[in-house]
Amino acid sequence: MEKKLVSIVMGSASDMPVMEEAIKMLKELKIGFEVMVTSAHRSPDRTSRYARNASDQGIEVIIAGAGHAAHLAGVIASNTCLPIIGVPIDSSALKGLDALLSTVQMPPGVPVATMAIGKSGAKNAALFAAQILANKYSEIKKEVEDFRKRLLADVEEKSKKIEKEYE
Amino acid sequence: MEKKLVSIVMGSASDMPVMEEAIKMLKELKIGFEVMVTSAHRSPDRTSRYARNASDQGIEVIIAGAGHAAHLAGVIASNTCLPIIGVPIDSSALKGLDALLSTVQMPPGVPVATMAIGKSGAKNAALFAAQILANKYSEIKKEVEDFRKRLLADVEEKSKKIEKEYE
Amino acid sequence: MEKKLVSIVMGSASDMPVMEEAIKMLKELKIGFEVMVTSAHRSPDRTSRYARNASDQGIEVIIAGAGHAAHLAGVIASNTCLPIIGVPIDSSALKGLDALLSTVQMPPGVPVATMAIGKSGAKNAALFAAQILANKYSEIKKEVEDFRKRLLADVEEKSKKIEKEYE
Amino acid sequence: MEKKLVSIVMGSASDMPVMEEAIKMLKELKIGFEVMVTSAHRSPDRTSRYARNASDQGIEVIIAGAGHAAHLAGVIASNTCLPIIGVPIDSSALKGLDALLSTVQMPPGVPVATMAIGKSGAKNAALFAAQILANKYSEIKKEVEDFRKRLLADVEEKSKKIEKEYE
Amino acid sequence: MEKKLVSIVMGSASDMPVMEEAIKMLKELKIGFEVMVTSAHRSPDRTSRYARNASDQGIEVIIAGAGHAAHLAGVIASNTCLPIIGVPIDSSALKGLDALLSTVQMPPGVPVATMAIGKSGAKNAALFAAQILANKYSEIKKEVEDFRKRLLADVEEKSKKIEKEYE
Amino acid sequence: MEKKLVSIVMGSASDMPVMEEAIKMLKELKIGFEVMVTSAHRSPDRTSRYARNASDQGIEVIIAGAGHAAHLAGVIASNTCLPIIGVPIDSSALKGLDALLSTVQMPPGVPVATMAIGKSGAKNAALFAAQILANKYSEIKKEVEDFRKRLLADVEEKSKKIEKEYE
Amino acid sequence: MEKKLVSIVMGSASDMPVMEEAIKMLKELKIGFEVMVTSAHRSPDRTSRYARNASDQGIEVIIAGAGHAAHLAGVIASNTCLPIIGVPIDSSALKGLDALLSTVQMPPGVPVATMAIGKSGAKNAALFAAQILANKYSEIKKEVEDFRKRLLADVEEKSKKIEKEYE
Amino acid sequence: MEKKLVSIVMGSASDMPVMEEAIKMLKELKIGFEVMVTSAHRSPDRTSRYARNASDQGIEVIIAGAGHAAHLAGVIASNTCLPIIGVPIDSSALKGLDALLSTVQMPPGVPVATMAIGKSGAKNAALFAAQILANKYSEIKKEVEDFRKRLLADVEEKSKKIEKEYE
Repeated sequence: MEKKLVSIVMGSASDMPVMEEAIKMLKELKIGFEVMVTSAHRSPDRTSRYARNASDQGIEVIIAGAGHAAHLAGVIASNTCLPIIGVPIDSSALKGLDALLSTVQMPPGVPVATMAIGKSGAKNAALFAAQILANKYSEIKKEVEDFRKRLLADVEEKSKKIEKEYE
Repeated sequence: MEKKLVSIVMGSASDMPVMEEAIKMLKELKIGFEVMVTSAHRSPDRTSRYARNASDQGIEVIIAGAGHAAHLAGVIASNTCLPIIGVPIDSSALKGLDALLSTVQMPPGVPVATMAIGKSGAKNAALFAAQILANKYSEIKKEVEDFRKRLLADVEEKSKKIEKEYE
Repeated sequence: MEKKLVSIVMGSASDMPVMEEAIKMLKELKIGFEVMVTSAHRSPDRTSRYARNASDQGIEVIIAGAGHAAHLAGVIASNTCLPIIGVPIDSSALKGLDALLSTVQMPPGVPVATMAIGKSGAKNAALFAAQILANKYSEIKKEVEDFRKRLLADVEEKSKKIEKEYE
Repeated sequence: MEKKLVSIVMGSASDMPVMEEAIKMLKELKIGFEVMVTSAHRSPDRTSRYARNASDQGIEVIIAGAGHAAHLAGVIASNTCLPIIGVPIDSSALKGLDALLSTVQMPPGVPVATMAIGKSGAKNAALFAAQILANKYSEIKKEVEDFRKRLLADVEEKSKKIEKEYE
Repeated sequence: MEKKLVSIVMGSASDMPVMEEAIKMLKELKIGFEVMVTSAHRSPDRTSRYARNASDQGIEVIIAGAGHAAHLAGVIASNTCLPIIGVPIDSSALKGLDALLSTVQMPPGVPVATMAIGKSGAKNAALFAAQILANKYSEIKKEVEDFRKRLLADVEEKSKKIEKEYE
Repeated sequence: MEKKLVSIVMGSASDMPVMEEAIKMLKELKIGFEVMVTSAHRSPDRTSRYARNASDQGIEVIIAGAGHAAHLAGVIASNTCLPIIGVPIDSSALKGLDALLSTVQMPPGVPVATMAIGKSGAKNAALFAAQILANKYSEIKKEVEDFRKRLLADVEEKSKKIEKEYE
Repeated sequence: MEKKLVSIVMGSASDMPVMEEAIKMLKELKIGFEVMVTSAHRSPDRTSRYARNASDQGIEVIIAGAGHAAHLAGVIASNTCLPIIGVPIDSSALKGLDALLSTVQMPPGVPVATMAIGKSGAKNAALFAAQILANKYSEIKKEVEDFRKRLLADVEEKSKKIEKEYE
Repeated sequence: MEKKLVSIVMGSASDMPVMEEAIKMLKELKIGFEVMVTSAHRSPDRTSRYARNASDQGIEVIIAGAGHAAHLAGVIASNTCLPIIGVPIDSSALKGLDALLSTVQMPPGVPVATMAIGKSGAKNAALFAAQILANKYSEIKKEVEDFRKRLLADVEEKSKKIEKEYE
């Protein structure tokens, strides 16, 4: 699909090494996306404006990654009714526990779908975005199901090697 | 909508006081749903069978709430490509920190969209399910947008009372 | 002083029992203030508009109290150059650890002066606001110094009673 | 003993450097074993099928190592009445705290015998498996007792060197 | 079985309300047991003597429950090659996190099979003891399998009630 | 002994219910003591003056109990070479974890001997003070040894009752 | 401004790599400052004397950075009515969690404005000092506002590069 | 003093790099000591025998360092009335939090004087041992007081260098 359905937003350009996992996953699933940097704190207007307009631009899911007191996903969620997926990033001394709690413990009324800390979470954010879109787009559903089969095949293949070694 | 689009699953009947928040929210948003109890550990077959069949039964989103080492959402997610929303429940001595980490720290490949611990999380799980469905169903989109307006109005009304008191 | 120099903002009307400690302290120090409820998530526009206008309204310090993933202080700080004091509130299952980390772990560029969790923090927020204002207003400086003397006298008085008991 | 009494299962091939400690220990205690990779999430059917058949294949104890939200041991335990020993692996940003709580905080009805995080835990899992088997097989009991004596001798030898240095 | 195969040891008589869960479970599974109070710190000789003699007295598994810096299970494990199951008890300000880490983080060489904190853990300790014994005693194996079936039936029954309510 | 050898200092009169455990223990061990309230923060001069003079007043050990960011023991330790025993008190939302880390994590050069959080710690502080004094005063040594015997006897007595019940 | 308005105090010379972030920020904002090393524990008199005299020396805000059980900011705050900003430093095994709780959890009566752990916190401490001073000095207010604009411009510039890459 | 008054015990020879800080400190304070390796778990008899005999051998204070579920200090304390100082060592995935809680959270009746995690704690353990001995031996008291003066002088000297740089 060429249409950009997913937006990947990150609070700082230094979050790219983590958020690239989401980019790679969306490419593998052939889902169109855009990427931008905007901070809940350093560029608040830009962030809320972006969130408010995203739906009109054709975006259907937003992935937001941030570290420290990660407010980005929550701030975006408060400015749109699109589903927001949060990726806590381990860029502080507390190894992402701060980002996790700042992202997941949203008060009632404005949810953020929170993923695991770091690269695992970034990859899963893309997958979860795909699972949301799969509800509407059958070609994405097919891609997700195929990915799952590759996951399973990969486990079986790696296991075979190890099983043999200890036979 | 009368069609049951959302499934609310909980690991134990004792989780009902928390998961009722999700039920109330879905009713408020006029989204059809079903409720069941099934445990990742005490009824594993029943759980994976339910997860595998859910899509064919017309379910489009599953909300799974569990406490302790909360494996329920992860186990359901591993058996279906539907989007799974996890609600960590604070039923153990560790006040839900165990359930939170067991739900959110999913390894790459099988995401669970994790909400806050307890009642806030249960309510938000229903809202997030609605936000997913809103991508496809315009009447649900309308309900979510109306809910957001009521949230805002409620803040303003409560603030007015307090502001007056301290004028 | 009759002029309203301090603003006390809270994310929910249910935070009042905690934030009342700040109100009582400001009254004791004879500092004018206003109180309002506004949420970073449920009323984002209202919150950023309030923050952007506060300085023009004569406010010189803002105290922001919130629980869960407490984004309120950070969101206000991102919309004004006034000093913002954050009070983490223990309204979730994690007993305020989430609110503390969400408030204190601000990324570089936009600071929030964070106080202790709960009532102690709310009281200290008012005191710290007074210490900021004391730099400019000599009558507030006098009030802060007098308060400190009362603190000391109170310790000495309470100690005397206990010392006697065990003589 | 040539018969394979113990099964070492891990959630990912990347867990091998940790789980090798269990392999080395079983070899030292001369206990037959098999090794396989299977994931609670990426290969759920394979995992539960393996667990259900293990007893019939002659396996008497299963050691399961996994990181992140480590559901592997719990999922295996829910599919068999064999004793399951869980090894939490520190492969995430939270350094194994997530894997520990996901493994140990099992709800009532389906226990997992949890070991320490990482290599210490993997080694101890093999030892604990041996202690379980020693209840039935006297030659394994002998091996465990001999191992304990070597442990003690090793402490005494190392102490002697250090004691001398500071005499 | 009338023979006492399991020993339930606790560090303080005040741990009884938690450890009673283990007692009830062993009774339900018809496994003979003895109960005693002995502390790693207040009665160290008594504790190590008990541990050293347990095997000769016919005990095959020991369950040890303790709170605070829970050394009891570790101290018993260091004095016998029998399998030791540890139950961390939440009797301190830290709600059992201290007891959990003191029990589970055993250094390599002397394992303790750790269960969940509190009553869930005590119940599971008895079940796990049964699973160990089931490897040798077919009548216990039968009891464990029957218990599992009752667990499953209980889930199904409770679910039915709730399912009906929301049909 | 009538001479006051131990000083019990607490940061707030509200800490008395916890620190009374230390008072009771010192009485049981027949060790003379004095009690006072002084805060590291609200009465800093009074605190450091007290610490500097304590040795000249015949005090040989100081027990300091405080909650929140518990600086009291550290501040006293920095003003005297007497051994200081710290008792972290669970008077904040974080249940004493803050007081524990603030007391125990002293930087190199100025130690504080830290006890468990709360009442257990207060009792043990008195016992540890006695163990320090026992090195110099044989009558205190005798008291400590007798106390230990009573501890042991108490365990044995309580165990007997429970053992009987399950014979 | 050449006048030294801010004092940067650290508990150990080894804290310089962190506290240099505060120095660089104050230089960028053209605010005069002084730097000193003094420990709450190793040089208590020097520390309290410094704190008591700071106001008379023309200092208007003090930034205090320390690791471990970080008492420095609290001890300084207890000796002056100037606003104190605390920077928790991650120099211990607990990665700054100890320093954070020791700094932020101040009991009611003596506040410390706490920043994030480590370098982010040191930079923000300087910014927050500037925001306090901006209330009185219009040229500092101008500097703070200009800094904020540079922050925003930097986000936009970095975003443009990344946006292009994925167009 | 040539007499060996202090014993330094560690649970594993691999703890030497940490415990050497205690050795260096005792040497600097000219206090006689002995060093040994003994484990609470791998050599339980040796450990309790050593603890029971220490007083008769002339030892007046024991320093015990251990990692993981650190039972060593507690086990020694349960076998002697000498004052025991515990050093939690950060040798596990949890960075010493497990060792800290296992050492400090001793139940009422058997105290362990706990120091900071790692090298700071090892150094402080030696200092605290000296402070205990200083109560009886005036030459040690003199050494402790001299050490404190050197600490202070070191702070002042290091500060001067930094102060100059920023004059």
